[in-house]
Amino acid sequence: MEYADRTKKMKASEIRELLKITQNPEIISFAGGLPSPHSFPVKMIEKITDSVLERHGAQALQYGPTEGLKELRELLIKRMKKKGIKCEMDEIIITTGSQQVLDLTAKIFFNVGDYLIVECPTYLGALAAFNAYQPNYIPVSMDDDGMKMDELERKLEENKNKPLDIIYTVPTFQNPSGVTMSLERRKRILKIAKKYKLIILEDDPYSELRYSGRSVPPIKSLDKDGIVIYTGTFSKILSPGFRLGWLIANKEIIKKMIIAKQGADLCTNTFVEWIAEEYLRYGLVDKQIPKIRKMYKKKRDIMLKALEKYFPKGTKWTKPDGGMFLWVTLPGHLDTKEMFQEAIKEKVAYVHGAAFCVDGKGHDSMRLNFSNAEDNKIDVGIKRLAKIIKKLMK
Amino acid sequence: MEYADRTKKMKASEIRELLKITQNPEIISFAGGLPSPHSFPVKMIEKITDSVLERHGAQALQYGPTEGLKELRELLIKRMKKKGIKCEMDEIIITTGSQQVLDLTAKIFFNVGDYLIVECPTYLGALAAFNAYQPNYIPVSMDDDGMKMDELERKLEENKNKPLDIIYTVPTFQNPSGVTMSLERRKRILKIAKKYKLIILEDDPYSELRYSGRSVPPIKSLDKDGIVIYTGTFSKILSPGFRLGWLIANKEIIKKMIIAKQGADLCTNTFVEWIAEEYLRYGLVDKQIPKIRKMYKKKRDIMLKALEKYFPKGTKWTKPDGGMFLWVTLPGHLDTKEMFQEAIKEKVAYVHGAAFCVDGKGHDSMRLNFSNAEDNKIDVGIKRLAKIIKKLMK
Repeated sequence: MEYADRTKKMKASEIRELLKITQNPEIISFAGGLPSPHSFPVKMIEKITDSVLERHGAQALQYGPTEGLKELRELLIKRMKKKGIKCEMDEIIITTGSQQVLDLTAKIFFNVGDYLIVECPTYLGALAAFNAYQPNYIPVSMDDDGMKMDELERKLEENKNKPLDIIYTVPTFQNPSGVTMSLERRKRILKIAKKYKLIILEDDPYSELRYSGRSVPPIKSLDKDGIVIYTGTFSKILSPGFRLGWLIANKEIIKKMIIAKQGADLCTNTFVEWIAEEYLRYGLVDKQIPKIRKMYKKKRDIMLKALEKYFPKGTKWTKPDGGMFLWVTLPGHLDTKEMFQEAIKEKVAYVHGAAFCVDGKGHDSMRLNFSNAEDNKIDVGIKRLAKIIKKLMK
Repeated sequence: MEYADRTKKMKASEIRELLKITQNPEIISFAGGLPSPHSFPVKMIEKITDSVLERHGAQALQYGPTEGLKELRELLIKRMKKKGIKCEMDEIIITTGSQQVLDLTAKIFFNVGDYLIVECPTYLGALAAFNAYQPNYIPVSMDDDGMKMDELERKLEENKNKPLDIIYTVPTFQNPSGVTMSLERRKRILKIAKKYKLIILEDDPYSELRYSGRSVPPIKSLDKDGIVIYTGTFSKILSPGFRLGWLIANKEIIKKMIIAKQGADLCTNTFVEWIAEEYLRYGLVDKQIPKIRKMYKKKRDIMLKALEKYFPKGTKWTKPDGGMFLWVTLPGHLDTKEMFQEAIKEKVAYVHGAAFCVDGKGHDSMRLNFSNAEDNKIDVGIKRLAKIIKKLMK
């Protein structure tokens, strides 16, 4: 036997190794991408699990339909409608986290060597999912309004004879940059995708976590041609441990997704589907989200204030209106990967920017997570980071 | 955009459509592969979920390690040791059901067009997982002692210059046949796999469900060369809705599996991992399994008795010592797929044998599930089936 060719592209995530180092409790870590443990409604979930088992009994423990519980999909359709996304029962399925949507999308669209557009920087987990299908990446850079549309159009024109499938984007409070794509660009990306006959994969884990500014409609809500695959998740509004997400797309795509999902894991976890159903049905989600927003807004503000206070002139950072991350770009020619060892010595951690970039850039940047660290650690951690940067700048 | 070539191989399961028909409560269905809802310890799970949330709080709801909870893996290592399988912490991971193991194995081993050995008949869900990776199947037929080793060796010799990766087997109480591979053949399959440098994928969902006869050691327990990938599941001994399984393999394979799993769903559901941990830690599993065995033994016996009583001469069926299925082969040239419409009219259902066979055989056979139907329906259902068969034989 030999391993499949694809395993050569599937490398152990550097981040994974890095995160192991940062588990030392003395280290103030801005490296991971974890929600705050305080954001999980533990007591509420205890009540819900009891209620689910009382109400549904064995049914909550049996295999469920591959497409997900009808009752949960109905409630999600209602919820999505409030975001401007209209969909029918045969246009939505429940998935094992939104991570599974990335895997299944790659599975049904990518032949070896197909091309796909990704933002630069982009979500690492998406690269992990896509790499297994051996695609070629076309990176498109970003500014404060998200993916640059002129660059996107130019690169598509240059590559129009190649097998192009997908534009992958996290348009709202992006991981890792914290940037949100402007409404104008959301309209334009749809036009561009239509012109080049591409599917947009809109990954939307963070849009419920807005702390300031006005909300921007999902790209899917503007999609008249059924060319957007939208994915949402319960990971940031209930529990990431539940591995519960959903996928909205046109009926034809959904049919193929169901077949692909059946091969991958038969169905999503029925028990947590019922828990989420109850969380939505009784409006508990709408009590919980404001609490999470308040918690994270405070953390974001502490971090932004600390950056302002400690970081040297010439450093730039994004000022996200929501989500869990911001993106810092250092002055001079500092290399954040090299700097990491210094940071660990000073007991502070981040993820170096190059890890998120398929275009070889990002060496002078880093991702900072502000949702996981305790409030009183954030200022100290940023101060430690600033000290290292200033030392290396000398 | 265009769909990936692999989607041509990924067909909607006929069984899925068929199972929808059989959801009519008037139909006595032997078609599905569901455990009995009475086999789930609902009250026990209610207590465990409360305890898990009290003891672990937010930790039970957070992302977990991709390889699975350390505590659960430790307990599984102990449990596997009792079955004769020795493994270390870096040789076991927790998965989203054992179905995910089938997908991940295919992902790390199959290039397009690679060859793999499957039993004939074989588990449908495995074909669903494998088809996405576009392999070629080499079917090997079975008798009452499992896969025929002479045929296996002959076919491997014929195909030895082709890219061969895996022998897939469900050696104990196989789905769909109910047949168990003899100890002698387990030893021989290891020798053959070693000779042809193949990996054996041992899928073992049913071995805890033994109702008669002496237990046979897992192939993995006889594996001195690290060439067996073993997968087990909580689906038949706790809850299939939890989507919780495990995978044991050599360290090198496990490393690749972890990378593949990270791309597929980041980690397994942490909450149900903790539930399973408690189910094992306090020995609750060993109280529950005898109850399930007793329940299913009764159902099997009722079905075997009814087959004896009603089915016409010349019909053959397997007499499984465990599991959830048996396999009936009809006399003459009756086609079980054609017969299905008649069965539905008579309000009884099964799955036709050809669905499980990649060699075009099985038209005269059917799979009967005995774990899901209520005891008092089994005799009536078999009587109805017998009536149809007798009618068509005239």
